[in-house]
Amino acid sequence: METIYTAKHKLRDARTELFGGQLVAPFERPSRAEHVIARIREEGLGAVSDPDDFGMDPIHAIHPQHFTDFLRTAWGRWKEAGFEGEAIPTSWPARRMVDRPPRHIDGLLGYYALSAETSLTESTWDAAYASAQVALTGAERLQEGASAAFALCRPPGHHATADMYGGFCFLNNAAIAAQHMLSHGACRVAILDIDFHHGNGTQDIFYDRDDVLFISLHGDPLDAYPYFLGHAEETGMGAGQGHTLNLPMPPGTTFAVWREGLARALSKIAEYGADALVVSLGVDTFENDPISFFKLRSEDFLTTGQDLAAANMPTLFAMEGGYAVEEIGINAVNVLQGFEGA
Amino acid sequence: METIYTAKHKLRDARTELFGGQLVAPFERPSRAEHVIARIREEGLGAVSDPDDFGMDPIHAIHPQHFTDFLRTAWGRWKEAGFEGEAIPTSWPARRMVDRPPRHIDGLLGYYALSAETSLTESTWDAAYASAQVALTGAERLQEGASAAFALCRPPGHHATADMYGGFCFLNNAAIAAQHMLSHGACRVAILDIDFHHGNGTQDIFYDRDDVLFISLHGDPLDAYPYFLGHAEETGMGAGQGHTLNLPMPPGTTFAVWREGLARALSKIAEYGADALVVSLGVDTFENDPISFFKLRSEDFLTTGQDLAAANMPTLFAMEGGYAVEEIGINAVNVLQGFEGA
Repeated sequence: METIYTAKHKLRDARTELFGGQLVAPFERPSRAEHVIARIREEGLGAVSDPDDFGMDPIHAIHPQHFTDFLRTAWGRWKEAGFEGEAIPTSWPARRMVDRPPRHIDGLLGYYALSAETSLTESTWDAAYASAQVALTGAERLQEGASAAFALCRPPGHHATADMYGGFCFLNNAAIAAQHMLSHGACRVAILDIDFHHGNGTQDIFYDRDDVLFISLHGDPLDAYPYFLGHAEETGMGAGQGHTLNLPMPPGTTFAVWREGLARALSKIAEYGADALVVSLGVDTFENDPISFFKLRSEDFLTTGQDLAAANMPTLFAMEGGYAVEEIGINAVNVLQGFEGA
Repeated sequence: METIYTAKHKLRDARTELFGGQLVAPFERPSRAEHVIARIREEGLGAVSDPDDFGMDPIHAIHPQHFTDFLRTAWGRWKEAGFEGEAIPTSWPARRMVDRPPRHIDGLLGYYALSAETSLTESTWDAAYASAQVALTGAERLQEGASAAFALCRPPGHHATADMYGGFCFLNNAAIAAQHMLSHGACRVAILDIDFHHGNGTQDIFYDRDDVLFISLHGDPLDAYPYFLGHAEETGMGAGQGHTLNLPMPPGTTFAVWREGLARALSKIAEYGADALVVSLGVDTFENDPISFFKLRSEDFLTTGQDLAAANMPTLFAMEGGYAVEEIGINAVNVLQGFEGA
């Protein structure tokens, strides 16, 4: 399987993450992608290619320009305002407040953020742009006839909505890739999000559409980030009714239970008749992940890849989370090797 | 004028405030109230009394029990979850998410917070409870016939809504005091918020009611905290239509301009025919306040007190903000002395 990768991901290298009332070194760090690409090369998974540059148009097919303008300019405006730390929101349009963008960058951050752990930094935008191009290049490979491709996206994307960043995500790579396929001939795309955390951004983007089926297996939002989306009763709205499926699971969930959810997801995907499958590939379901609570072991990721291959669809893997950095390469590549029948 | 004060405010003594992407020493600190009470004693303003204890009932007349239960138990739950810093929210029900309380304390904080600068700490609840009792005791003095009283509340209250804390506020002291007067014979109460920041919590609590007139002079929310409430076009709803008046003003506003706003506020209060006036007294309109942008000088606070006295109503002053700590005593007491014609 071909991997799309660029070292530009290293431009996303925040110093601080707000966690447990402290500013700590971010869980989402450059070494994550480094471990994955190293493992791919060690295992000889296949070619590693640079992304092409599709420009802003396919990004704007998902994210409005006022949002990308904000992401591009936020750091400069934050520094200009004289703040000394990385850019972290402190205020947001809470319930019964007015959801209107303020002028001051301190308030504007909270308008465009869905959570505060994710510091904005000097070159975050450049890395997010590059990550979206990685996803787009992977989508393009499927359009060209490849049966599978791995978009080694970093920063990840599935928490980003059309107009909000957070959860380490800025642009929704999986959504941008899916939309690119829909804009170039695909009639229906299924997105299967197997990251530990609910893919709230992807759900939100396609919630009222019937040309994308969104399915997420994740830690119950009552217990886990993003806390405020991903309940079982969210099933889509309008034309999208029935095209969202959430499978929240409790702390301690084992692979046996998780795999039943995967089977249910794949069965619904088969019924849907998609032209392509986008897998939001997080491996923070791993038993030793520092910020998650599922119990998958490394060999379970191999089985997961095999199960995904049995769906027999053109499949784009887009990298999302996974914070047990030492094992992230093994676990992510296990999925890809399982998929390839290795 | 009698001052109600308790040293229990010192129980609110956070180590951290999230500001400009850093964790800094809080602007809202115990020395604020210490400077005010010292100045009151120096100037011989009048008796200084301990608050009575009115219990939880008058607090629950404003704040639902699930919210006060949260405030009371949050610190214990946060420590039990193993977090090492003070309790700071990172996630909230952002737009198009589900506004439902999660189980995990990390998510629950964001459900009950309207901003993230305000760390919850071990004895925050005890100080907030005491601060509300200070306000209630002041209200009781007016009920008993006093023409004025000063509730030296700390922590402040005007940003707290019925079900959200933030902006250094936990329980809305001014709202609790106003409701106490309404519950004990007053027909109409006017609340005039002259703190630099919009009194979003107070507005929100009484927005659909006609027995409270809420007027706020403040930094334009497009430029200043709380950013998402306090626009001129917010005038109340339902029965409360026309009973909210916001006078947002731009950076650099001088006393001459601010005083025109005050005159407009007092004219509307006179028309309303309230039985009592509650003044949310912040002195962060001061020219040297570190986090605000108006240009009032210390002598302007004396004039402000004189203007307020001319309204000729039973008046409860409830302390809110003011972060130029060295001058906070002079500025706050200047208002009270101006009011008394000193």
